[in-house]
Amino acid sequence: MFELMIPLDTGSKKPLYEQIYDYIRRNITDGKISRGEKLPSTRLLAGNLQISRSTVESAYEQLLSEGYIESKRGSGYYVGDISELYFCSRFAGQKTEKKKTAGFRTKEAFLDREKYRIVFSPEENEFAYFPYNAWRRITREVLAADDPSLFLTGEAAGEMELREAVCSYLYRARGVNCDPKQMIVGAGNEYLLMLLVQILGGKRKVAAENPTYLKAYRTLLNMGCEMVPVRMDKSGICMEDIKEKNPEIVYVMPSHQFPMGTVMPMKRRLELLQWAKERQGRYIIEDDHDSEFRYRGKPVPSLQGSDAGGTVIYIGTFSKSISPSIRVSYMVLPETLLDAYDANCGFYAPTVPKEQQKVLAAFLNQGCFERYLNKMRRIYKTKRDVFLALLKKESWVRTIYGDGAGMHLLVELKTEKSGTQVVREAEAKGIRVYDLEEYRILDSGKQENRFPTLLLGYGALSEEEMREGISCLREIVSIQSEHTISGRFG
Amino acid sequence: MFELMIPLDTGSKKPLYEQIYDYIRRNITDGKISRGEKLPSTRLLAGNLQISRSTVESAYEQLLSEGYIESKRGSGYYVGDISELYFCSRFAGQKTEKKKTAGFRTKEAFLDREKYRIVFSPEENEFAYFPYNAWRRITREVLAADDPSLFLTGEAAGEMELREAVCSYLYRARGVNCDPKQMIVGAGNEYLLMLLVQILGGKRKVAAENPTYLKAYRTLLNMGCEMVPVRMDKSGICMEDIKEKNPEIVYVMPSHQFPMGTVMPMKRRLELLQWAKERQGRYIIEDDHDSEFRYRGKPVPSLQGSDAGGTVIYIGTFSKSISPSIRVSYMVLPETLLDAYDANCGFYAPTVPKEQQKVLAAFLNQGCFERYLNKMRRIYKTKRDVFLALLKKESWVRTIYGDGAGMHLLVELKTEKSGTQVVREAEAKGIRVYDLEEYRILDSGKQENRFPTLLLGYGALSEEEMREGISCLREIVSIQSEHTISGRFG
Repeated sequence: MFELMIPLDTGSKKPLYEQIYDYIRRNITDGKISRGEKLPSTRLLAGNLQISRSTVESAYEQLLSEGYIESKRGSGYYVGDISELYFCSRFAGQKTEKKKTAGFRTKEAFLDREKYRIVFSPEENEFAYFPYNAWRRITREVLAADDPSLFLTGEAAGEMELREAVCSYLYRARGVNCDPKQMIVGAGNEYLLMLLVQILGGKRKVAAENPTYLKAYRTLLNMGCEMVPVRMDKSGICMEDIKEKNPEIVYVMPSHQFPMGTVMPMKRRLELLQWAKERQGRYIIEDDHDSEFRYRGKPVPSLQGSDAGGTVIYIGTFSKSISPSIRVSYMVLPETLLDAYDANCGFYAPTVPKEQQKVLAAFLNQGCFERYLNKMRRIYKTKRDVFLALLKKESWVRTIYGDGAGMHLLVELKTEKSGTQVVREAEAKGIRVYDLEEYRILDSGKQENRFPTLLLGYGALSEEEMREGISCLREIVSIQSEHTISGRFG
Repeated sequence: MFELMIPLDTGSKKPLYEQIYDYIRRNITDGKISRGEKLPSTRLLAGNLQISRSTVESAYEQLLSEGYIESKRGSGYYVGDISELYFCSRFAGQKTEKKKTAGFRTKEAFLDREKYRIVFSPEENEFAYFPYNAWRRITREVLAADDPSLFLTGEAAGEMELREAVCSYLYRARGVNCDPKQMIVGAGNEYLLMLLVQILGGKRKVAAENPTYLKAYRTLLNMGCEMVPVRMDKSGICMEDIKEKNPEIVYVMPSHQFPMGTVMPMKRRLELLQWAKERQGRYIIEDDHDSEFRYRGKPVPSLQGSDAGGTVIYIGTFSKSISPSIRVSYMVLPETLLDAYDANCGFYAPTVPKEQQKVLAAFLNQGCFERYLNKMRRIYKTKRDVFLALLKKESWVRTIYGDGAGMHLLVELKTEKSGTQVVREAEAKGIRVYDLEEYRILDSGKQENRFPTLLLGYGALSEEEMREGISCLREIVSIQSEHTISGRFG
């Protein structure tokens, strides 16, 4: 057992238990205290620090609830396995940066909720655990400050305090290397893509994985880009296809492809980066859309972090990690595009209210975001484990994949019915499931022959709802409809 | 004197004084009590209603401060001239709708405030009077409601409660005829213009007044539109130029052109509407950018309100009337474009946070916005009167125009120096003024010969600052610089 010399500031506004919590957490994440090390007992630490034991207990409880430490009955507290936790050491270097990945997004703009009892949505998340009190408190503080600058136009690219907080978060969590001046904050990924096309001086030829995140695809199409769908293999986007179709820009989700869940291995990443470097004006848009919740496997840092050529444009969002109603996304530009940003888009007013930018910056800086993510990762992992266990019992399930991260997985069905038909029959029973084909770019040349595959989101569902939905699918998939039979032979 | 039978609800959460205030204000704005009618004394009304006199006094004070009633010393309270007030009767019909106009906007994305002592900015407004307590209270209420829908993606076009509140406001205040389903709420005018080009299916040939609001001009240019600058005469945009250059879309500010301050008379409006009706696919973008603060002249309703052909796309913003940091704009589409909106842009997530949409809706619905505008109109009118009086004493001022509304005016100078030179010399003295030429589209064919003209915003300035700025300009304009002399003869 090591000794803890915690410098306490009794004059600080920060409560003592929080100072203790912060100190220990920082020492764990920085690697100064390692996994398995025993912490001093609450009684001992309280005595050493000359404070009350309940203060130490509060700090330990917080660390426990977030998984930084573990309690062994009758034995005490030990440093937990933080490789499972969201944040890794600042000093561990990029290659070993903590990875996060996940997967969801649909093309469904609105969901008629009254039509459905259960929605296996890849877009919705669980918000019952959101630290609403902290959010409210920070909002009150921001508004109470009577800060006259709240009324002035903010910086076009976003408030510097928010950009700094996000950069620091991205560096720690995703291995993204950037200076705050490379970052543009905007009201959603689609808005940032609109800006990006303007930064690049107008329409370009853009390749995208097929299937892909259709909102991004459609945005680029709306902006006049020529869109080229590209096949995927087990490592992600096919390099041969890219070389053959010769786009200027490639839009990819290397850390966790939506909807397929593919994680692009380092070899393919290097090939892609090499392709971009070969000709000037080539760029890779890395949409790191849901990198917060990963349940197994080694962490994969961002593609941007491996990019020595300044060819990666990195895009991410808080809409997934906090809530879809938070419309804050960020784009990291390579240095070479900063002049073009200033010239073409520097005159645009910011699109995220200054008030919300300040609230979000404080939410990040006070560690609320990190604590929330750590808590939610455990909750989503439990949901996923329950969902997987339920699905594995089902005889109509051929294969399950894409379940290593995020809040949805893919299920190949043993059925004569088409995916569309299963979706339609489920709809009639008040259950919304998603056919993988819904995410395919339609004008794609080759149609691959696949088993009907459903995309099932579980982030917002209770175990009860999962059971009910699965039992419904069992009926649909197992019982041949007359329509199907006549359809097959008619 | 008429009698007031005010139905009071002592069980209501709304304070009694507010119930009295609301009742009288509604009766005034609805025309049930007319200008010049005497109100019962506070003592009499308190007696009739069996409440304390101070409650009635509070209500009267509120009505006084907003200009609904006037006090004549020793005689009592009378209904004021509400034709000067912002909101007119709901029942008065469009033609007599209260008008508002104003003018400011610059192409300056950021202002290096440390460089200047005094900024005659047409973008900045006075925010010392903003009802921050009400805004804070409403924000607290919205957050305290623990409404789970706050966490779900909102409607793409904006929350229905906000769209309804804005529609009702626009109908009363601007004579805009629209159903909430025609309204798209978005994070700023420029974002809405980006959407509009996508709704219209891509780049078009767009005519704009010259000079114009350059941010809109540049946005449309960025979106790939072919931009055609069109001359202005005293009635606004020249119809002959439009006919000659044959655009598909015309971007105009008929109620108060920026930066010229021109109000388009009805005849020209009808010509413009007629032009749009003549061929399918022609549209008019009406940017009603700052219609809140008008100081004289007859109200002019929106062009949209006169449009029978469904050709006007109406755009407005809260960034001017509340604060530049509020990034909420709205666009009213003609019914014929709604299908195109759904098809091309319906998939976009909203860009204004749901929380802020709810706060703003309540701010409108509770009458806070109206009260604020009425108060600010008086404050800006006083500022303008002071500024005008100061300028009229100056011998170097040739003409002043564009002062009927808004928070800036235009000053033609008697000087040998160019506008650019005056701006530069003022800058050296720590004063930021704006040359009208800064707002001109550069590649315009004909260059008109004008006197050097400054655009001077006064919305955020104190009388002291105005005096200091004017005295500085006096020096610059009156004293011939050697540089100028050598420049002219050299």
